[in-house]
Amino acid sequence: MTNYKKITEQDIHFFTSCCGVENVLTDSENCQKYGQDHTEDLMYPPQVVVKPVQTEQVAALLSYCNQHNITVTPRGAGTGLSGGALPIYGGLLISMEKFNRIIDIDKKNLQVTVEPGVINQVLQEELAQFSLFYPPDPASKGSCYLGGNIAHCSGGPRAVKYGVTRDYVLNLEVVLPNGKIIWTGANTLKNSTGYSLTHLMIGSEGTLGIVTKIVFKLIPLPQHNVLLLVPFYSAEKACEAVAQVFYSGIIPSAMEFMERDAIDWVLKYIEHISIPVEDRVQAHLLIELDGNNLEQLMLEAEKLTEVLSCFECGEILFAENEAQKENLWHMRRNVAVAVKNNSVYKEEDTVVKRAELPTLLRGVKQIGKKYGFQSVCYGHAGDGNLHINIIKGSLSDDEWNNKVPLGIKEIFELCVKLGGTISGEHGIGLVQKKYLPIVQSQIQIELQKGIKKVFDPNNILNPGKIF
Amino acid sequence: MTNYKKITEQDIHFFTSCCGVENVLTDSENCQKYGQDHTEDLMYPPQVVVKPVQTEQVAALLSYCNQHNITVTPRGAGTGLSGGALPIYGGLLISMEKFNRIIDIDKKNLQVTVEPGVINQVLQEELAQFSLFYPPDPASKGSCYLGGNIAHCSGGPRAVKYGVTRDYVLNLEVVLPNGKIIWTGANTLKNSTGYSLTHLMIGSEGTLGIVTKIVFKLIPLPQHNVLLLVPFYSAEKACEAVAQVFYSGIIPSAMEFMERDAIDWVLKYIEHISIPVEDRVQAHLLIELDGNNLEQLMLEAEKLTEVLSCFECGEILFAENEAQKENLWHMRRNVAVAVKNNSVYKEEDTVVKRAELPTLLRGVKQIGKKYGFQSVCYGHAGDGNLHINIIKGSLSDDEWNNKVPLGIKEIFELCVKLGGTISGEHGIGLVQKKYLPIVQSQIQIELQKGIKKVFDPNNILNPGKIF
Repeated sequence: MTNYKKITEQDIHFFTSCCGVENVLTDSENCQKYGQDHTEDLMYPPQVVVKPVQTEQVAALLSYCNQHNITVTPRGAGTGLSGGALPIYGGLLISMEKFNRIIDIDKKNLQVTVEPGVINQVLQEELAQFSLFYPPDPASKGSCYLGGNIAHCSGGPRAVKYGVTRDYVLNLEVVLPNGKIIWTGANTLKNSTGYSLTHLMIGSEGTLGIVTKIVFKLIPLPQHNVLLLVPFYSAEKACEAVAQVFYSGIIPSAMEFMERDAIDWVLKYIEHISIPVEDRVQAHLLIELDGNNLEQLMLEAEKLTEVLSCFECGEILFAENEAQKENLWHMRRNVAVAVKNNSVYKEEDTVVKRAELPTLLRGVKQIGKKYGFQSVCYGHAGDGNLHINIIKGSLSDDEWNNKVPLGIKEIFELCVKLGGTISGEHGIGLVQKKYLPIVQSQIQIELQKGIKKVFDPNNILNPGKIF
Repeated sequence: MTNYKKITEQDIHFFTSCCGVENVLTDSENCQKYGQDHTEDLMYPPQVVVKPVQTEQVAALLSYCNQHNITVTPRGAGTGLSGGALPIYGGLLISMEKFNRIIDIDKKNLQVTVEPGVINQVLQEELAQFSLFYPPDPASKGSCYLGGNIAHCSGGPRAVKYGVTRDYVLNLEVVLPNGKIIWTGANTLKNSTGYSLTHLMIGSEGTLGIVTKIVFKLIPLPQHNVLLLVPFYSAEKACEAVAQVFYSGIIPSAMEFMERDAIDWVLKYIEHISIPVEDRVQAHLLIELDGNNLEQLMLEAEKLTEVLSCFECGEILFAENEAQKENLWHMRRNVAVAVKNNSVYKEEDTVVKRAELPTLLRGVKQIGKKYGFQSVCYGHAGDGNLHINIIKGSLSDDEWNNKVPLGIKEIFELCVKLGGTISGEHGIGLVQKKYLPIVQSQIQIELQKGIKKVFDPNNILNPGKIF
């Protein structure tokens, strides 16, 4: 059912009485602002934006909207890349931006309790002061919220060694679509007490409930790291090197791939960074090793360079100091922004077994040729997670809207053939929804719809997403 | 609904035509054998035992039973401690013992595909030949099946550093109660493609489907380890030491706690092992460190002993060789068996934040005094996971059946008060079911029942478990 009630003055009166007039926005400028995220150039303004500050307010809002058939879209920082936070049926948008407290850092138990509107990097920096570590670090870590990270089960460069968001969530406070509040688990490292509602919530893209508190487990912060930028004369060889590194027993704390175009575009975009790149270089790997013993790290780095030298790489750049490391990471994290600055683009988030990366990359380029689009590929090669930015450039709207999706479909079919799937960390949201049947059977999709109905029988919470 | 159809000759005819007459057992000796697991002295014989060898046979059996209202209980090795594999309504028991193939070790991608009837240790030993590592290692690793490990999200000593079963499962082939076959995920390290049916299956104790293939991720096998047995003059001090070790930045690959009684009972039970234990010793920690750099390990061990020395420990025993290590582990793994050899007992699987362990231990002893029962406590202290073996000994059946459960209830209430839960790795199954409302609200339980109904509308698969 998508026939939702329009929000009336009376409803707005309830919202303001619940959350305060200063936390309810109805002007068109704000509705436009909250009607977009980082997905292409899409725009779906809500009717009303509310910024609750307490769990009980979220509960009251959901209970009210559930009773009055008003659709609700939860929103984090709006950095999503699959349109998960877009209010496609208008209605109420609940922005979690005021849930921004780090509630408790439990140093004895290596746990932290936070609200979902805390920025990823803010948490990381706070924890680092106590030598504690929350590893997941999406490229958007400077702006994305931890709640959004849970919605999409975000990864980031360090996932290759430390795992994704899912691997750090112990317990969630969640407001269900009917306004009831639950905790999904316990604040323990192990839990075998019934179905894992915690893990069901993670990656459910705000369709099953709104997360209002998160308990993460933490680990001690590694004391040292080394960072290497490795140029390759063939992009496929770079991808081949990736599997070989792991096979040799080395687990880097990051293993990022960037095609030549990615580097060129980003170096043009970020003017203050300059890196010499030989003409014949086709791709780079950015590789980080971390640990508590610097000598051991150096031994590993040596072993690593030995492995890499078998794959036609150029001269390896060892970052000499923190500033150089920061520059290299800044470069990597800004690839998508640099591409966006050049052209509208679609970002695909393919993931395959890591040894299949060369085949995937080759396939993407062939499919691009067939359908006439250019792509910039980069991403978390150590996880087999390749981001494919498809550039609109000079394509006509007709080509962009009708021809390119056929190519995307072929790319996804290739992923599935290679044992992979169509999203590693961005989620399905709105824009990948139509491709879901490529990777999931009708039975799987029906099971998910059944689960959705258990949580949200009136389908008011973030409808029209995933399936 | 628990009014299931009794199995008739006609049904047995179908089972034999499906799986072969040699794989269908109806004699009472076998039905008795498959009517018990490792949970107390419980016995619920099925009417018929079938041992399929192929996924399609499991599918045919489930489809048939679903249509004919015959209840089905899936069974691994029967080493469960919560009665999850007991066919409490009789009917058909599907033993997965013939699903015992390691299908593919993918060395390039550090993945392995196995059937669920493979014994945990068999997989570990096979992988070790290739320097690959599947860490989860329940005490029963020499006999338990990987499918059972998934059903209960098993942990084991190494979970403290390497995580539990959940952390290694990439993808599952599952036969649903209606006989349909799905894969729950993809063979990738990251997956943000819809709700995680993989994680929903893990820990669902065979109530949502029968797992027929598993894809695990692997890691490189650490090359070295050191093992220390540390005696303490106070059990509570031993527990306090646990949190301090992690707080100091050391992450052991095992951190096991055993009260004095546990050691005494097991040393009596295993005659070939002898360890000198001072009279005043009240508890031991068995601590393992692992890694690839032996020097670094020795430095860590030194730091570790420094930390421990602040908690009134006695002389630390460093295992000098592999045989001694094996003896110490053999001892730890046989605590439950030794207790069982002495008396019927109930095993509780409490878990709290690790710094709360001393409070939990103190509480357990106080509650035991109040209700007149003796307990032997041991377990995965690094995870805050304390196994409490409550001894029947000379208690009357009335005390055992009516008074002891009141004490257990109090122990679980204490766990919840300490931010913990009632099962860390054994599951809820049959025997903990009545305690579930202590730790979960009615809303949480209703959500789980709703999910169960989506997967198994006729409630034929392992009914009467968890909730």
